[in-house]
Amino acid sequence: MVEVSGARQWDRMMELAKLGAIPGDGVNRACLTELDRAARRLVISWAERAGAVASVDAAGNLFLRRAGAQRDAAPVLTGSHLDSQPQGGRFDGAYGVVAGIEVLAALHDAGVVTARPVEVVAWTNEEGGRFQPGCTGSMAWAGVAPVDAWDEVRDLEGVRYGDALAALLASEADLPRRPLGSRPHAYIEAHIEQGPLLEAEGLDVGVVTGIQGSRWFRVTVTGASAHAGTAPVSMRRDALQDAIRAISALNVAMADPDDVLRFTVGKMVVSPNSSNSVAGQVVFTIDLRHPDRDMLVARGDAVGAVIQQALLHCTAEIVETFHALPSGFDADVMATIERAAIGAGVTHRRMASGAFHDAQFAARVAPAGMIFVPSKDGISHHPAEYSAPEQLARGTAVLARALVELAG
Amino acid sequence: MVEVSGARQWDRMMELAKLGAIPGDGVNRACLTELDRAARRLVISWAERAGAVASVDAAGNLFLRRAGAQRDAAPVLTGSHLDSQPQGGRFDGAYGVVAGIEVLAALHDAGVVTARPVEVVAWTNEEGGRFQPGCTGSMAWAGVAPVDAWDEVRDLEGVRYGDALAALLASEADLPRRPLGSRPHAYIEAHIEQGPLLEAEGLDVGVVTGIQGSRWFRVTVTGASAHAGTAPVSMRRDALQDAIRAISALNVAMADPDDVLRFTVGKMVVSPNSSNSVAGQVVFTIDLRHPDRDMLVARGDAVGAVIQQALLHCTAEIVETFHALPSGFDADVMATIERAAIGAGVTHRRMASGAFHDAQFAARVAPAGMIFVPSKDGISHHPAEYSAPEQLARGTAVLARALVELAG
Repeated sequence: MVEVSGARQWDRMMELAKLGAIPGDGVNRACLTELDRAARRLVISWAERAGAVASVDAAGNLFLRRAGAQRDAAPVLTGSHLDSQPQGGRFDGAYGVVAGIEVLAALHDAGVVTARPVEVVAWTNEEGGRFQPGCTGSMAWAGVAPVDAWDEVRDLEGVRYGDALAALLASEADLPRRPLGSRPHAYIEAHIEQGPLLEAEGLDVGVVTGIQGSRWFRVTVTGASAHAGTAPVSMRRDALQDAIRAISALNVAMADPDDVLRFTVGKMVVSPNSSNSVAGQVVFTIDLRHPDRDMLVARGDAVGAVIQQALLHCTAEIVETFHALPSGFDADVMATIERAAIGAGVTHRRMASGAFHDAQFAARVAPAGMIFVPSKDGISHHPAEYSAPEQLARGTAVLARALVELAG
Repeated sequence: MVEVSGARQWDRMMELAKLGAIPGDGVNRACLTELDRAARRLVISWAERAGAVASVDAAGNLFLRRAGAQRDAAPVLTGSHLDSQPQGGRFDGAYGVVAGIEVLAALHDAGVVTARPVEVVAWTNEEGGRFQPGCTGSMAWAGVAPVDAWDEVRDLEGVRYGDALAALLASEADLPRRPLGSRPHAYIEAHIEQGPLLEAEGLDVGVVTGIQGSRWFRVTVTGASAHAGTAPVSMRRDALQDAIRAISALNVAMADPDDVLRFTVGKMVVSPNSSNSVAGQVVFTIDLRHPDRDMLVARGDAVGAVIQQALLHCTAEIVETFHALPSGFDADVMATIERAAIGAGVTHRRMASGAFHDAQFAARVAPAGMIFVPSKDGISHHPAEYSAPEQLARGTAVLARALVELAG
């Protein structure tokens, strides 16, 4: 039987977490940086030890393929992402990649040859922390958008996404290139829950039924900078004050008595951002999520008018940067994961995902599903993010059984 | 007679403006940077050509001294600053330094020996654009605060003010050091108006009667970061939302039907500043100004309570970083400037200053005054800031006459 090693997996998680480590056990590993490249090299070295071969596609997605008996059969695909939030944790994304590698290693240790190939993928830029939106790697792979759709997006330092991606590909010129896109037999992503449910109910894994929809907007409010000491308040075109009016109006328009709609303004950049200059421009983001498609469409479509009506002295440009409708996972894959959980002797429940994941896009191309493991106190996108070694090991045991069943 | 050269002065203004030039004819020359050092070296080279000698004090203030017949007499001091706002113009500060150098050059050209020495000063960090507050150089020189009072202040990149100042002093180890503080016979600062009055009335110079008071605060709102997709809105401690509540409450509390009070939130820094993370911390600044001392004290003292009452889910720390009460200039110096304006044949009026200036602190140590020249459209702290060559020349002609009268 294929036995995953919880100890080896944990050691690798901790080794990976050193790349971009920040105080409080956190990780800041932005996509397409030197740290990201180092993480990819580390993961490749582990995969090669398990007999897998690395390749990269034009979107920068890294694939690690362990051959099957049927050389040309559609592979079973698993994985997640290696990039983190700016003040992120050690487990979000990294776990799904390391868990996939652990399954490859366990297959290798046991000398098992599956019928289908098994592939592990590390998707490019899932978080959207450095370049917005996130999931650009899986979206390009799934054909949701062309690979150059985000080339002109810039990070806070003004670096173009297109240039950062080209630099990554140049630095990995020694790796085989593979065509963008594929049709796997199935896709399963292991991930931390990023919410409190599994911990609260004392359960080992979640069998994810679907992902709520997300819409992202970037709002640029333009006024005119002026001297804070000489410009009368009545004559100002203060972009920060109009941004505040817009967000206050959105708070009202996006209020949800059921507390299901998630409305977040998480990023704001003020120019010139000097204490004695009136703000000439403010750029802020909106992250809107809801599991119901109609609700998400209606509320998202209202964003522009709410902002425009709230402005007093400035103009605003509103751009939708990400649009992912709610998606449900494949019934057969969910059933496979449940059988695997029963076989592995771990407790489980079905649950929806509040966060979006690359699996949302993989689901457009192949039967897909996800396995959640508990998050301590439900904390994620924060250095305090934590899942215990044995919790990760149980999730990977379920992943291994499910992949082996699917790979035959 | 001492004749200033408007052409030479303009050429030097334009040469100085190349250091930190930004699009739209602007300047970004933060204090204590390489660009700032280059500007100081350039100014020293001009001063030395006029027979002046450079020296630097422990606060980084640069003095350029032209000897008088009475070697030990208290000098007549003029000057301003070389640092700019992040998106600033070519004239704010730079004009007062170049005008002072032009007076030295005109004295040199005419072979005039004044009774008292004439000194030009470039004060350190007037703008407060990189390190808050501004006027740290003139405050330290005037004994308002010890020279190490701001050592722990950090810029946006985390650099300490103390370290940046030490690096400047190390880079200028070849220049003579002078003791911090002095008692000049008088101080006159030439500056652009940064407001629309002189232009609107078609006048050449303003004889400044005083400067309105300023109080600066730094507000740190602390909540808890969380995942934008999984954290219910009702359970969040969103620092950006509480910062907006605080600023909205301040807008009400600081409203002034007379439109004299200047209330500005010009700087805001959000952490982690990621579109799909709830903000865990927001730091914003308050710049509050009023010409009436009692009004400034009352409104400023209310800031803390207004913020604390507005918060719903977060905590706030409020620190006052700058406190300059309204100040009036010396009657004799104002009269001297008016005589100089009449002698130079330029039109003039008395007026108050909305912006603060180093002269505010020099006025604590010596009889002080200021000369304003017109600002096109009243614009300042912006690349479009502009005063014409002949406008600057008229201001410097008045400055020269006033300095010569005071220097004897």
